[in-house]
Amino acid sequence: MSTTAPLTPPSLPGEPARPQHSGARTWQAPLRERLEGRPVGIVGLGLIGGSLGLDLQAAGLEVRALVHREATAERARQRQLASVVSTAASVLEDCAVVVLALPLDRLLDPDPALLRALPPAAVLTDVGSVKQPVLEHWQGALRQAGRGGQVGLFVASHPMAGTAQAGVEAGVAGLFQGRPWVATPDGRTDPEALAVVQALSETVGAHWLTCAAADHDQAVAWISHLPVLVGGALLRAADQGSGAAGLGELARALASSGFADTTRVGGGNPELGTLMARCNREALLTALAGYREAIGTLQELVQDERWPELAGALEEAQRLRPAFLMAPADGAPPAP
Amino acid sequence: MSTTAPLTPPSLPGEPARPQHSGARTWQAPLRERLEGRPVGIVGLGLIGGSLGLDLQAAGLEVRALVHREATAERARQRQLASVVSTAASVLEDCAVVVLALPLDRLLDPDPALLRALPPAAVLTDVGSVKQPVLEHWQGALRQAGRGGQVGLFVASHPMAGTAQAGVEAGVAGLFQGRPWVATPDGRTDPEALAVVQALSETVGAHWLTCAAADHDQAVAWISHLPVLVGGALLRAADQGSGAAGLGELARALASSGFADTTRVGGGNPELGTLMARCNREALLTALAGYREAIGTLQELVQDERWPELAGALEEAQRLRPAFLMAPADGAPPAP
Repeated sequence: MSTTAPLTPPSLPGEPARPQHSGARTWQAPLRERLEGRPVGIVGLGLIGGSLGLDLQAAGLEVRALVHREATAERARQRQLASVVSTAASVLEDCAVVVLALPLDRLLDPDPALLRALPPAAVLTDVGSVKQPVLEHWQGALRQAGRGGQVGLFVASHPMAGTAQAGVEAGVAGLFQGRPWVATPDGRTDPEALAVVQALSETVGAHWLTCAAADHDQAVAWISHLPVLVGGALLRAADQGSGAAGLGELARALASSGFADTTRVGGGNPELGTLMARCNREALLTALAGYREAIGTLQELVQDERWPELAGALEEAQRLRPAFLMAPADGAPPAP
Repeated sequence: MSTTAPLTPPSLPGEPARPQHSGARTWQAPLRERLEGRPVGIVGLGLIGGSLGLDLQAAGLEVRALVHREATAERARQRQLASVVSTAASVLEDCAVVVLALPLDRLLDPDPALLRALPPAAVLTDVGSVKQPVLEHWQGALRQAGRGGQVGLFVASHPMAGTAQAGVEAGVAGLFQGRPWVATPDGRTDPEALAVVQALSETVGAHWLTCAAADHDQAVAWISHLPVLVGGALLRAADQGSGAAGLGELARALASSGFADTTRVGGGNPELGTLMARCNREALLTALAGYREAIGTLQELVQDERWPELAGALEEAQRLRPAFLMAPADGAPPAP
């Protein structure tokens, strides 16, 4: 059984040979070999960092975590999100692998003290939802810090798991089970470091994929960032349009689960939505242009009463949707 | 406790006094008094008709149902959706109240035999999701059939409950519990007939509202019909755009619950979506125009990198959404 999906661009340089998973838990081997008993470091214990801390500890690994505030550290200790939690960057000093589980803005403008505190031989990975700026920023920052040797050890990655929750209370066990974890290596990425992060992702039950950073960013613009604006615009339009007609109260009273679902991500965290748009602006603009054309086409069909064509368009939408739904975790390893 | 929401336009002629609900199950009184032990008829045993049959029987009422095909009748009998199920219109002859639980197209072009079979003194109601054309069609059809006296007994209504299911297997108990049931009386509507349908809706636990038919149709265009096109366009745009860039497989693999939710109704029944658009075209075009302006505004903010304004717009969306979510059934009577 392999968990490597066939999405890796065949031309990508520095791509490791597909690891063999021949026995129980041997898919953890590259991680265990790298760690040699040393801890995994996690910077930030929000939804992703906290969940990762719980799952990695459940898999028998030692986890040390760096957080910003002492109150967060205290709560994280109560929740046992890591075996050691500290606001002092020195907590990372023995870590052989460090996961930067920071929000995108802090990832793209990290505290200089954090960079200094990262062990120079550690494999580094991040969990940001936009990959090209992260990869460019960190490769540049490591070079500028005189750590050119660590550039290849930085593996840009994106575990695609989430809930509406954020902060130190958000982390939950099993968050990554069966969910995609995408890495975006380039020609500079060390194959062994990539294998270590793959093993880490599989340790928490995720489904590993690799692709080019630009491809990741365009794909998530379509399926993750565009839906935020599509749903946000629906909320604003429904409110303004019904309100202007004196029907606001009626529209709100009649809105059902269909409206609730269509607007769930559009009515989500506004800072996060703005950050995605800022960090993935060009890809999002491409997606927005395509979307406006698509909604304009449907509008024309209604305007011109071309009902068979409208039915055909909606049939196509119905036919397309199943392939976009979360696949069963068929390639994922058993939960640790 | 009253289940009448304060949405009734105060100027609406023919509006009944708000019924008093002073004791257990007295909210069923207008229905019981009308029936005097006679059965409720249901025409069509799909999702709405079948669910209604189950709940009305559970409330101790006798239900007789007319369906189109003998195979449907057999299955409906096995599922006990009504006490008598027949393909012969004469099954309705003793019914004091008849619910026309037909799809919108059949409701707007009913079998002449059905009209003939409706008992002339029966209170009639429908369950169509667009109200103005239904009200106009049935008031006209009854007059043309020499049943001018029954025009006031036709109560156009819309129970707003649904699942993705359709057909004789779809009906489930408790479907209407806490959900809105909207009636759109006009000056011709008999107040007593309206009270009977209200009592019927409350017998199955629905939350009764009344408004003008045109207002209903514009409100559902915003919150029910527009989301179908919004989500359908997203599916088509994401497929075409990612496919054109060679990223179709990647986009499908990375699509998560956010994409699934945003496109749920957009990837739903295409015949139903087309029927809504046909029967509610003008209101839908108004909503589409407002929506295209709203998505265009967000596109401009991204294009012009006006991030604080984008954050403000998404904050507004987040703030607006809770009022559109399904309210707890606070005004609904206890389940029968």
